[in-house]
Amino acid sequence: MHFTRKDLETADRKFRLNLVNSITGVKPANLIGTISEEGRTNLAIFSSIIHLGSNPAFLGFVMRPTADVPRHTYENIVKIGRYTINAVPLPMIENAHFTSAKFDRHVSEFESCNIHPTYIDDFDAPFVLESPIKIGMKWEEEIPIKSNGTILMIGSVEHIILEDGLVNEKGYLNLAGGNVVGIGGLNRYFSLKQVGEFPYARLSEVPDFS
Amino acid sequence: MHFTRKDLETADRKFRLNLVNSITGVKPANLIGTISEEGRTNLAIFSSIIHLGSNPAFLGFVMRPTADVPRHTYENIVKIGRYTINAVPLPMIENAHFTSAKFDRHVSEFESCNIHPTYIDDFDAPFVLESPIKIGMKWEEEIPIKSNGTILMIGSVEHIILEDGLVNEKGYLNLAGGNVVGIGGLNRYFSLKQVGEFPYARLSEVPDFS
Repeated sequence: MHFTRKDLETADRKFRLNLVNSITGVKPANLIGTISEEGRTNLAIFSSIIHLGSNPAFLGFVMRPTADVPRHTYENIVKIGRYTINAVPLPMIENAHFTSAKFDRHVSEFESCNIHPTYIDDFDAPFVLESPIKIGMKWEEEIPIKSNGTILMIGSVEHIILEDGLVNEKGYLNLAGGNVVGIGGLNRYFSLKQVGEFPYARLSEVPDFS
Repeated sequence: MHFTRKDLETADRKFRLNLVNSITGVKPANLIGTISEEGRTNLAIFSSIIHLGSNPAFLGFVMRPTADVPRHTYENIVKIGRYTINAVPLPMIENAHFTSAKFDRHVSEFESCNIHPTYIDDFDAPFVLESPIKIGMKWEEEIPIKSNGTILMIGSVEHIILEDGLVNEKGYLNLAGGNVVGIGGLNRYFSLKQVGEFPYARLSEVPDFS
């Protein structure tokens, strides 16, 4: 099957949306937790969290334009300066998926989707109690992407809170054992099975593949 | 386990690198194929490919600074204006992993890692023959990320070439059936098992989670 740019442009809108959202492969499934100045919590699923650097530790995520629809997550981050990123655990994929419904501003997705907030001292934003990987973020920068009007939101890591036994002495996380899931396209969820682990790729240790 | 910003700053470098590269969850495994003006091919694994928009179809990926080490992928993209993104199939994870070794400029990772290039008419950059999802990209924009000096490279989709049977009539890709894999941290690879599929989250159709 070969789709050209023109095929995509003239394709049915939903077909294009599903296809183009799927072609990058499996994406991480995370819930972003925020709180408003009035103390209203908000929770939203994102598949666009991305690693930007380890020292200092920076993560990014992509938001659609703010002009067309209200973006409670965006507004809360910019006002409060803190947010959380929480891995979606396998038993909670349906709850997490439906946080993307357009709930009213006064409705918290924590309540509507039966997901439980938890807090740590001196950090405003709510974490997801059930999540095996909870990350407390400080907002750093907002980068407009001229090509299509989306926004790259960048933050630095202030806290990493892990389920017991998830990290080993090398810093590796047991994603499969931690019931961490991935997303395909807009609506499919995947569990993980580890199939390989390879060392840092030194030139002198490249296997003979011939 | 709770790591604060200070814990991360004072941690062993490799521990921090492994941990912070793992905390976003599972990442897509893709090979970026490029060619130089002299016709030398290059292939490199990236776990930072990200969806930016569907209409027009835009994808991005993150590169580390170009000042410290040669970045053949970057140079080729900027000069030629075309590149390919190719999903790593399960039987090829070790080959794909070792494309990250620092091969000399005159060495092609296609040859060293026994991965096969393939071409289509009127498109310079090489695709990966064995890949179930091949994407032909036109370079659009380079966005410097001030926070840590990385670069977000943005391109538009010109071609999508899929293995037979991978896409259904709705535009959904069968990632698990296509042997598409994910990456954890810097060196772990995961196969996928589909565990859920949910409809677009309409407010009127949110399940009663209570």
